[in-house]
Amino acid sequence: MTRHPNFSAGPAKLPDEVLQQAQLELMDFAGTGMSIMEVSHRSAGFLEVADQAVSDFRSLMAIPDNYSVLYMQGGATHQFSCVPWNLLGASKKADYIDTGIWSQKAIKEARRIEGGDIHVAASVNESGLLRVPGNSDLLIRADSAYLHYTPNETISGLEFNYIPDTDGVPLVADMSSSILSRGVDVSKFGIIYAGAQKNIGPAGITWVIIRNDLLNQAVTRIPALMNYKNILSQDSMLNTPPTYALYLCGLVFKWLKKRGGVEAIEKVNRQKSELIYGVIDQNDFYANAIEPSDRSKMNVTFSLADQSLESKFIEESEKLGLYNLKGHRAVGGIRASIYNASSLESVQALSTFMNDFAKKYG
Amino acid sequence: MTRHPNFSAGPAKLPDEVLQQAQLELMDFAGTGMSIMEVSHRSAGFLEVADQAVSDFRSLMAIPDNYSVLYMQGGATHQFSCVPWNLLGASKKADYIDTGIWSQKAIKEARRIEGGDIHVAASVNESGLLRVPGNSDLLIRADSAYLHYTPNETISGLEFNYIPDTDGVPLVADMSSSILSRGVDVSKFGIIYAGAQKNIGPAGITWVIIRNDLLNQAVTRIPALMNYKNILSQDSMLNTPPTYALYLCGLVFKWLKKRGGVEAIEKVNRQKSELIYGVIDQNDFYANAIEPSDRSKMNVTFSLADQSLESKFIEESEKLGLYNLKGHRAVGGIRASIYNASSLESVQALSTFMNDFAKKYG
Repeated sequence: MTRHPNFSAGPAKLPDEVLQQAQLELMDFAGTGMSIMEVSHRSAGFLEVADQAVSDFRSLMAIPDNYSVLYMQGGATHQFSCVPWNLLGASKKADYIDTGIWSQKAIKEARRIEGGDIHVAASVNESGLLRVPGNSDLLIRADSAYLHYTPNETISGLEFNYIPDTDGVPLVADMSSSILSRGVDVSKFGIIYAGAQKNIGPAGITWVIIRNDLLNQAVTRIPALMNYKNILSQDSMLNTPPTYALYLCGLVFKWLKKRGGVEAIEKVNRQKSELIYGVIDQNDFYANAIEPSDRSKMNVTFSLADQSLESKFIEESEKLGLYNLKGHRAVGGIRASIYNASSLESVQALSTFMNDFAKKYG
Repeated sequence: MTRHPNFSAGPAKLPDEVLQQAQLELMDFAGTGMSIMEVSHRSAGFLEVADQAVSDFRSLMAIPDNYSVLYMQGGATHQFSCVPWNLLGASKKADYIDTGIWSQKAIKEARRIEGGDIHVAASVNESGLLRVPGNSDLLIRADSAYLHYTPNETISGLEFNYIPDTDGVPLVADMSSSILSRGVDVSKFGIIYAGAQKNIGPAGITWVIIRNDLLNQAVTRIPALMNYKNILSQDSMLNTPPTYALYLCGLVFKWLKKRGGVEAIEKVNRQKSELIYGVIDQNDFYANAIEPSDRSKMNVTFSLADQSLESKFIEESEKLGLYNLKGHRAVGGIRASIYNASSLESVQALSTFMNDFAKKYG
């Protein structure tokens, strides 16, 4: 069996060691004669797995004590609804930074709230060079319930290189594609949420970090499975959680701790992205229109000067076992998603291929 | 490795053959060099898996063409909210049959709807003999948007032996614990939904069957991931679905088809439940207070005449490798959940143990 380099944007590559362990114990977890996916979420064996996962996540992210951690279902899209439903009970005002497709989806959901006053604090400049709005460009209303932003836009490959200073307005971040890839000072946030399928585990589980003082401002009549406080009161087991997905997240957390945690992986991630951006910038053959400081370290997007060569690029990369490099259907081009589980070696193989391809057709 | 009989109420036992195949291809799906959980939900390889699962589900349930099939996240609890949000846009009236804890949870969620008029059509008799209300006992309002019921209550072990005739009011059923265990005439229903973790697959995916004419009566401002019509318009991929859970459901559907489908498994399920109820009724040592015709074929509950022996019953059953027989924490006693994946042999082992235990301590 050859395991191929896989640059999928999500669901994405998982660490080989994690899948190996999952495979080994798939039919018999810890000598129980049962799969971990076949037992009750309230069984002692499973609760141990769940508690350890939460505790490892807290430690990896260095989450302060005044924050709670929840795991939920429905991905970031569900959070697009949950955030306004949980926070707009009193002030109906919220501000959003629009940096692309994912931000826009979040804004659209917030606008469904009855009586909501949803304001765009800043938009990415869609013409010419793409860049993240600066802190001073953000129009944040002092009485807003929160400011929402998307630190990393997976489709365009745009990433914030700073954490917005909101002057006290709670900051809410969709970290689906960057969580655990770099150090983050959680205390600067009100809520952080992330679908697991990029840096944490399989699709079907979402992690939410919430500052405890924000748990008391939900819109009345909020559905049970959107209510953070309600879910927290049952330790994320208000209903049956996605147990196997949670178990896999736990394995990924252990793997990351063993590799030295977020600090260590951040260094590798920087090397990986610099390697590919280096190839792009050294060849007129490739182009990336994003301000260098705002380029994503997780999703490297680029186009070919001669667009007609893109399908050949995909074809030849796959021949070498480099998979899932096609850009998102909304924007086209090429995208290499290089989350935590993508090894430096696989990224080196990609950069070699890119150089060779440019020589061959450039 | 010994695989143990596992009577867990959910997440529950999965067929050995399914787990074997999942284990075999966990790191390398169909020679791709990637796990099926590592690829995009929009990749050709995954779409084939998804489409086949939906098609097999349709065929197993004999779903008529005027019904749509969706897979979602959030389990039955999410559906408790989705059903009223999707159906109460026009008439705010809905009727619910209350047969126990799960029905009551559904009612509670429906009552969160702004301006909703939620009425209990009938309640189970909680005193003395437990039985399902008869069709003539149901107070269904002719202008109700729907009648909701729970064909099988997993906690008490109470099951409807008939499908309510509602005289045209759409019938909505939470079939989480009985779906695919017996033949069902889908055309008698407006909506059928089921969390997967009992008869279909792992926790984290929910199947919904909806009659197409019911797709146009949602409450305004319904959150995106609650909106059936919205989700259907994207073939259940409005956002990233729980891909691995979906793949496992597909394997279970194939397994069930190979075993002869619903008709064949229904016969085995009848044998299994008759075997245990036979032991209960033949021994004064055990008791089940449910009207025999209304006893669940999936969740056999019973108590011991001498309640102080219950912990010994659990202890000795586990010594024999018969796991997860403890009743739900809300009601106590013993519960053997014998879903499709529980073999006749494992149920025979349980009945032998029950007889031996009764002889030893009776």
